[in-house]
Amino acid sequence: MATESTTDQPTSPPLRIGVALFPGFQALDVFGPLDCLNILSWTHTNMSMSILAATLDPVSTQIPESPHTIGQHVVPTHTFSSPPPLDVLLVPGGLGTRGSPPELLQVIDFIRTVYPSLKYLITVCTGSGVAARAGVLDGRRATTNKLAWKEITALGPNVSWVPRARWVVDGNVWTASGVTAGIDATIAWIEEVFGAEMALEIANGMEHTRHTDPEVDPFADLYGLA
Amino acid sequence: MATESTTDQPTSPPLRIGVALFPGFQALDVFGPLDCLNILSWTHTNMSMSILAATLDPVSTQIPESPHTIGQHVVPTHTFSSPPPLDVLLVPGGLGTRGSPPELLQVIDFIRTVYPSLKYLITVCTGSGVAARAGVLDGRRATTNKLAWKEITALGPNVSWVPRARWVVDGNVWTASGVTAGIDATIAWIEEVFGAEMALEIANGMEHTRHTDPEVDPFADLYGLA
Repeated sequence: MATESTTDQPTSPPLRIGVALFPGFQALDVFGPLDCLNILSWTHTNMSMSILAATLDPVSTQIPESPHTIGQHVVPTHTFSSPPPLDVLLVPGGLGTRGSPPELLQVIDFIRTVYPSLKYLITVCTGSGVAARAGVLDGRRATTNKLAWKEITALGPNVSWVPRARWVVDGNVWTASGVTAGIDATIAWIEEVFGAEMALEIANGMEHTRHTDPEVDPFADLYGLA
Repeated sequence: MATESTTDQPTSPPLRIGVALFPGFQALDVFGPLDCLNILSWTHTNMSMSILAATLDPVSTQIPESPHTIGQHVVPTHTFSSPPPLDVLLVPGGLGTRGSPPELLQVIDFIRTVYPSLKYLITVCTGSGVAARAGVLDGRRATTNKLAWKEITALGPNVSWVPRARWVVDGNVWTASGVTAGIDATIAWIEEVFGAEMALEIANGMEHTRHTDPEVDPFADLYGLA
């Protein structure tokens, strides 16, 4: 299936975006990429954005087992059991990816189920560990958060993990390194799909100093990898 | 009042954070800074985070007058008419800062009312235009989004606008340039208040390549300012 997907070129723009949320997701893993996509929608009029979760109750960024921490609640639009058609699924990371709480297991099941119909899967930070647990990274090159490297890579023994990478593209799967790397990966994805001019306009509008080379990764050195 | 505030040093850590939301706020203006503060709360156990809005209904990032655009909904915790005690108020920007919709006028009134009791006011992007309209930037140095420079600076004729700045600090008011500059400003604020080690730990955990010099601003050049 993975091999098929790499040769399955999309024929229409991938405008139907979904995000899989779970308690304890990392806020910026989601809203870095989504801010880019929100801006893209100012000039692309047929986009849709679905926020998927186990239920329609607002989902908090707060770490479930640490009630002293602060968080914010985001409102889902769909449940994993009633998803809309999607071209792209974004999977964030965060401390909520630890262990096997029921909501996270639903995310993993959803990724496994929906992946064959996606044009692109994008993960940010430890979100690649969630995708790995769904089996969809098997046989692929991928990266993840560098501080959580050992913990996450152990979740995907059949994944070819790349330690020095701001992000990695393998077929239709884009995996970004930690948190803000998701912004760079998303802008690079927009460049590939919607063109360099659109990507540059979004980056400049966000006043974002881009990492444009996916192989330049100061955090791989910082954390003693590669 | 502005002069008093610059000499009014806080005596306890500013842990009670609030964010003022309105329809059409820029997602990353909020969740860049909040991700930094969320991480701060992992080690600072007395923090609180209040999401303030005109009502308790979820607030969308969608541009109100552009229903074809996509957006996400965030859940408020308090209304402007029943705010909790706050040490810090964060004011984001976004296309929702245009004109005078009722919800935005409530934000402006709230900033004017709450400012004297704040330890810090932090604005991101065109959020400084909202603060300027509240009068709290009068006589101060401040910056804003560089692409929206003319439009926003016109809102504060008594503000000393700084065109070449990733962010500006004047007394207890921190104003960041466009969108992702809010991440750098917030990490710099954490450095000032909670120390350099904490700031570095957060930046590295987010794998964020910081702008550490507030006067280095490639976007001032890009947009022909300064």
